[in-house]
Amino acid sequence: MTVFAPDDLTVVPVSLGDRSYEIKIGPGVLAEAGDAAKALGARNVAVVTDQTVAGLHLEPVMASLEAAGINAAPIIVPPGESTKSFAHLEKVCAGLLAARIERGDLVLALGGGVVGDLAGFAAAVLRRGVRAIQAPTSLLAQVDSSVGGKTGINTPVGKNLIGSFHQPSLVLADTDVLDTLSPREFRAGYAEVVKYGLIDDTEFFMWLERNWQDVFAGGAARTRAIAKSCASKASIVSRDEFETGDRALLNLGHTFAHALEGAVAYDGTRLVHGEAVAIGLALAFRFSASLGLVSQAEADRVVDHLRAVGLPTRISDIPGEVGNADRLMDLMAQDKKVKAGRLTFILVRGIGRSFISTDIPPQNAKSFLEAELAEPVPSFDD
Amino acid sequence: MTVFAPDDLTVVPVSLGDRSYEIKIGPGVLAEAGDAAKALGARNVAVVTDQTVAGLHLEPVMASLEAAGINAAPIIVPPGESTKSFAHLEKVCAGLLAARIERGDLVLALGGGVVGDLAGFAAAVLRRGVRAIQAPTSLLAQVDSSVGGKTGINTPVGKNLIGSFHQPSLVLADTDVLDTLSPREFRAGYAEVVKYGLIDDTEFFMWLERNWQDVFAGGAARTRAIAKSCASKASIVSRDEFETGDRALLNLGHTFAHALEGAVAYDGTRLVHGEAVAIGLALAFRFSASLGLVSQAEADRVVDHLRAVGLPTRISDIPGEVGNADRLMDLMAQDKKVKAGRLTFILVRGIGRSFISTDIPPQNAKSFLEAELAEPVPSFDD
Ligand SMILES: NC(=O)c1ccc[n+]([C@@H]2O[C@H](COP(=O)([O-])OP(=O)(O)OC[C@H]3O[C@@H](n4cnc5c(N)ncnc54)[C@H](O)[C@@H]3O)[C@@H](O)[C@H]2O)c1
Ligand SMILES: NC(=O)c1ccc[n+]([C@@H]2O[C@H](COP(=O)([O-])OP(=O)(O)OC[C@H]3O[C@@H](n4cnc5c(N)ncnc54)[C@H](O)[C@@H]3O)[C@@H](O)[C@H]2O)c1
Repeated sequence: MTVFAPDDLTVVPVSLGDRSYEIKIGPGVLAEAGDAAKALGARNVAVVTDQTVAGLHLEPVMASLEAAGINAAPIIVPPGESTKSFAHLEKVCAGLLAARIERGDLVLALGGGVVGDLAGFAAAVLRRGVRAIQAPTSLLAQVDSSVGGKTGINTPVGKNLIGSFHQPSLVLADTDVLDTLSPREFRAGYAEVVKYGLIDDTEFFMWLERNWQDVFAGGAARTRAIAKSCASKASIVSRDEFETGDRALLNLGHTFAHALEGAVAYDGTRLVHGEAVAIGLALAFRFSASLGLVSQAEADRVVDHLRAVGLPTRISDIPGEVGNADRLMDLMAQDKKVKAGRLTFILVRGIGRSFISTDIPPQNAKSFLEAELAEPVPSFDD
Repeated sequence: MTVFAPDDLTVVPVSLGDRSYEIKIGPGVLAEAGDAAKALGARNVAVVTDQTVAGLHLEPVMASLEAAGINAAPIIVPPGESTKSFAHLEKVCAGLLAARIERGDLVLALGGGVVGDLAGFAAAVLRRGVRAIQAPTSLLAQVDSSVGGKTGINTPVGKNLIGSFHQPSLVLADTDVLDTLSPREFRAGYAEVVKYGLIDDTEFFMWLERNWQDVFAGGAARTRAIAKSCASKASIVSRDEFETGDRALLNLGHTFAHALEGAVAYDGTRLVHGEAVAIGLALAFRFSASLGLVSQAEADRVVDHLRAVGLPTRISDIPGEVGNADRLMDLMAQDKKVKAGRLTFILVRGIGRSFISTDIPPQNAKSFLEAELAEPVPSFDD
């Protein structure tokens, strides 16, 4: 893995021509919000956040903005996936207009991926585009959703089906705020960290196997894992901003994950996004194994690590009913990655050796899901 | 003015790098819809249109698509400005998902500017962007809204405040369909044609003064006026796609126009967009005259032509109350073109000599509006 200076502050650049920006990672970086907004020339800044994060982290951000002479207006939405809706998009847009956010001003998204996706999308469409600062407060948002410019909302037929590409002007990932995150949410975000190892960095996966307890404990290992994840994402996004090719690799585990989230109707008490991704990663490896692409031993090793940190790895780990294979196939067919009716799967030939496949017959996926649903999958400790 | 071959079909290119496209103008070009969609590689096409246009022109478009082996699904919205809303955006998006419009497929906007703006915006955000064909059926949409990629919806505080830049892949401007347009709507669209002369083409304005009756009658003069308007717009858009500079000239008359439309709450029985633009053009010339930038005689000449074709030119031409100068100033302050709290006005030094001004003291605009509201403005035939 790329080694970063073990300094407090790590800066990861995202190179996208005139849309380039920096990701600042470290304890206390949110205190820079005011100066950063001022440096970007904003007069008014709307801080979009959810009720939970507002109670914990809004005040210092408002204070930092006001100290820099910025008019700061908070816009507070309910926490949870169901906030990524047309109804809340309309409300946030109304709030931005009431705060007189003009071209040249800024939207600051302070929260997890839900707030980042919703506020980022509102910024993308307000006056046909104003700038945004992403200030991710969940691990998942710090290592994934705040970087790369994908924004959007859900519809009743699928996740993230409505949205825009809208790169932020700056990402402020304050590692201090992760201390208030619930262990369940931290773990869920960790699934996306593991994903980067599985996509194309065997060494990083092995480093995580050895060091995950330090990553969970906080401190330098955690900052390092976040920075490494951001650097991986930045590198893929720089090569393929609009997902015409390689960027689809970032969806490893996500075709399954989105279908599972749909199957529980985005009910976060049953399944949060990162947990769905953990199951999706396990399914991607087992599906690849069932196709003879990767050894069962390597698939088991991935499942082993996910289970070691306490993440779910089987559909049956989800409490309650999720429906049958036909239902899940239908949900997968609504995936954005569908092209000319064909499903795209990200498959693996090994840990760190993922690839994009568009020629898997749907029947294979269906049989695989039927088998997964039929019986608990044998695994190392069964 | 640039002279086009008086052929039946005129093709105006819009040069925007890998977002370049053609505007095909002429009688019967809608019959090409099916072949065009096929050439663009679409399997499914959703035709978004309004009830009025559906009754008149939907059938042949569906037939053309089906003849080309395309799955075509109609999505029909109510006519009128109030359709450019979040509620209808959500409905159109749901319709596009139900029609399984995937990346690679197409949205075809068949209608006036309302349908074009709404369907174009839905295409921009569906799956973070699918392609669109604009098939404008009103004169206003053929000469203005279908070209240049601005899409969007209105909010209670102002017009077009939510939207995207999303260039179409093709524009099919069928001049035959204009025959079913009401005289009032044709006249309203003509205000935007006049606008191109006023912005930077004195000769075109003079040509319109001489030939407007032929333009209204149809045939070659009409196609020519449409093509010339599209070429003007294409040229400005190619130079400044995202309106960081010159493109703002296309808003000549529009800061006033949008405020007036807001003042009547977008009630099309009182004022349609093109009529608001006609009044806005007259106000821009009279405001410029009041600032000593242009002669009163030249302002009168513009007003004269607009009145000759039957367009309104004064605020008092709008039936009912529109409120006082403060109200209009407030409405103008919500304009997207506001930067750092300053209003942008497009002013004129003559016919065909418009320029962008950001340093007009608000007090001048307010006094001007007070004078306009106080008394019928003296004009050539009073
Ligand atoms: N745009 C992208 O590229 C991208 C990538 C991955 C995921 N996503 C999206 O991200 C979303 C999931 O993100 P998420 O897991 O951050 O969900 P989330 O935003 O719902 O946050 C999870 C929970 O943690 C709480 N929370 C956040 N920060 C906290 C903190 N510091 N202290 C205490 N509580 C805190 C939130 O209030 C929420 O209840 C999904 O909607 C997913 O689709 C987007
Ligand atoms: N995107 C842009 O760059 C841009 C530029 C200018 C205007 N606009 C927008 O365009 C809209 C106004 O466009 P419009 O004037 O076309 O309004 P519109 O779409 O409401 O059409 C006007 C009326 O004419 C009817 N109609 C359209 N074609 C017809 C036909 N061939 N036969 C019979 N009836 C027909 C419609 O049903 C409607 O009732 C406004 O919302 C304005 O903001 C956008």
